[in-house]
Amino acid sequence: MAPIKVGIIGLGATGPALGPGAWAVAAHLASFVPSPNYDIVAVCNSSAESAQRSIDYHKLPATTKAYGKPEDIAADPNVDLVVVSVIVTSHHKVAKPVLLAKKQLFVEWPLAASLKQAEELAQLAREANVRTIVGTQFRADPAVQKVKELVDGGAIGRVTSTQVQYSPSLGPPDMWMDSARYYLDFKSGGNEFHISFGHLMDSFLYVLGDFDQVKASLSKQYPVMKLFDLSNGQVTNPGVPRTAPDHIFVQGVLESGAIASINYHRPGTLLGKNFRWLISGTEGEIEFTLDGHLQIGHSEREIRIKTVHEPSEVRVVEWKRETPKHVESVPFPGQNTAFVWEAFASGGEGVADFEDGLRLHRLLDRIAREAGSPYAEYVEEM
Amino acid sequence: MAPIKVGIIGLGATGPALGPGAWAVAAHLASFVPSPNYDIVAVCNSSAESAQRSIDYHKLPATTKAYGKPEDIAADPNVDLVVVSVIVTSHHKVAKPVLLAKKQLFVEWPLAASLKQAEELAQLAREANVRTIVGTQFRADPAVQKVKELVDGGAIGRVTSTQVQYSPSLGPPDMWMDSARYYLDFKSGGNEFHISFGHLMDSFLYVLGDFDQVKASLSKQYPVMKLFDLSNGQVTNPGVPRTAPDHIFVQGVLESGAIASINYHRPGTLLGKNFRWLISGTEGEIEFTLDGHLQIGHSEREIRIKTVHEPSEVRVVEWKRETPKHVESVPFPGQNTAFVWEAFASGGEGVADFEDGLRLHRLLDRIAREAGSPYAEYVEEM
Repeated sequence: MAPIKVGIIGLGATGPALGPGAWAVAAHLASFVPSPNYDIVAVCNSSAESAQRSIDYHKLPATTKAYGKPEDIAADPNVDLVVVSVIVTSHHKVAKPVLLAKKQLFVEWPLAASLKQAEELAQLAREANVRTIVGTQFRADPAVQKVKELVDGGAIGRVTSTQVQYSPSLGPPDMWMDSARYYLDFKSGGNEFHISFGHLMDSFLYVLGDFDQVKASLSKQYPVMKLFDLSNGQVTNPGVPRTAPDHIFVQGVLESGAIASINYHRPGTLLGKNFRWLISGTEGEIEFTLDGHLQIGHSEREIRIKTVHEPSEVRVVEWKRETPKHVESVPFPGQNTAFVWEAFASGGEGVADFEDGLRLHRLLDRIAREAGSPYAEYVEEM
Repeated sequence: MAPIKVGIIGLGATGPALGPGAWAVAAHLASFVPSPNYDIVAVCNSSAESAQRSIDYHKLPATTKAYGKPEDIAADPNVDLVVVSVIVTSHHKVAKPVLLAKKQLFVEWPLAASLKQAEELAQLAREANVRTIVGTQFRADPAVQKVKELVDGGAIGRVTSTQVQYSPSLGPPDMWMDSARYYLDFKSGGNEFHISFGHLMDSFLYVLGDFDQVKASLSKQYPVMKLFDLSNGQVTNPGVPRTAPDHIFVQGVLESGAIASINYHRPGTLLGKNFRWLISGTEGEIEFTLDGHLQIGHSEREIRIKTVHEPSEVRVVEWKRETPKHVESVPFPGQNTAFVWEAFASGGEGVADFEDGLRLHRLLDRIAREAGSPYAEYVEEM
């Protein structure tokens, strides 16, 4: 099969570090370059000159087109698929022309800065009848795939309850990068609730399905943050109020009838693993732990299972699978994105589309409304 | 100081096994007999003859009085303190005459079969101006005492969040003893929610205080139970519906401002410890784990702490303390009750009184109402 011809919106002229344009480098460029399934044929930035700088910096082929407007890369007949990797507040504006041009489309998670925007993008994708991808790459992780396979295969019988504890390692809970100040703002749609917790919930929905009844308590334990300059570590502002929660406790009953609890807390757990997901059933229990940052970090994963038929034995489940070298060789934090691209090329499991993204947006809005003031009001305003 | 003269209501002529009258043997008799602080001077059962059989069976002094009515043991001028260890549905009826006689009073947890009954007992105790005890003995456990000491002493700074996971080892989740059928009934006031979860919540309130906002999801994952005869293990009824929940997920914001989650799930955890309590603060984190049944089982306890000042070091906290031989020698499941009696005699920490019991009843009612139908309706009817 001929490689899929990719146009990227938001590829910085930078190494795979933090900062604007860097995620596209660390995740997408790192996935596409070694893959036989993809060719990068175009780059679009805020100007054609900036796009050309990225093409040069990354030594992409001289034939790679440089664009300065989403409409232009969308209109390029040589582009099969557009990758949107820009700040969430621009997703809707940048993605819309691509869908109007009926191109296949990848958009980072969150799909959009509000449910309303996400609904419009999903509707446009339906009308365009194109394959879409939303960048919740944790579900493509082989360990998540294995957990889903165990649950779906009935390894623990009927699921009766599930409990998730996650404490992401995002540095000191009262400090944040000045350059990503929007992350402290609930209404930006790109903050701890929508991004970090959202990534977790995508895999939760993927493995166990949606909520029938949901309850939630959101809290700001660090309501005033210190901002710092990422380049030198200097504090640039000693006291900026945040509106996005740093603690997210959710519980309820799933459509399956199982009872569920998801607790997101800060700071990163000092004791035990950063992430622990317990799934209990009539025939046994699965424990999935991870040490590190959930969706992007290099992390040690472990799946353990114990069943009522082998009550004295805890079995460590093998989750690694045979992976093409061009995926295996992609370094963290890009590897799970490489799994997404591999799955997309082969039509396999582990790819979230815009309908999945929409379902996740709806659940997040529902959680915020259920948590009450002021989060319910923010949602109304978004 | 002269020993406190005790009258026991509900001491069976039995060894320290399961079944009616056996808890008083395993916990109270086992605590009082070796203690220099208490003398058993009277026993009251459903008849004076039954009380005399218990006195003879346990070889209590010949001077021990045998009674057949709570009013009679309450009226005995030689009795300083009455211990009520009977089924919860009888607590109110049995305890009331004792309070009217202005005797010091111990009542097992739950204090009564409904909040209304508990309120009346607490009011009578206030009017009688007597010392009271409610039998939530887990708070007297030296490990719980140590956790409270660490939190109160600021070892982890301001508490930001707490998460409890408890899965009691009560045997197969779909089987129960025919002789304790009331345990499946929410409205008996003596079931998994009120007893097993209640004991846990007493220590939670003791260490971290009450809830400001509370949310709850209750669920019956095993709505139909098999009853069995404890004497021979035979199934006596293959399908009895239960109204008491077997899964209790609670979350909310505490009066302190910390955010909290408590998950009670069945069956007993197959993976990890039965009980894990994480308390996170601005300066560190405490993890308290226990393997076994929380309030009555023999259990391995461990307290670990890590602080931001010693980020690389997890410290196991010593919680054992010097204990008089007459307490140390009491075997499980009675030892925590022995700690209660020791603390009561010395006026120390670890004793819950009727006001504590009332607060716990109120929280349980609040949780049930918040969980909605049918639990909210049951509470109205109780």
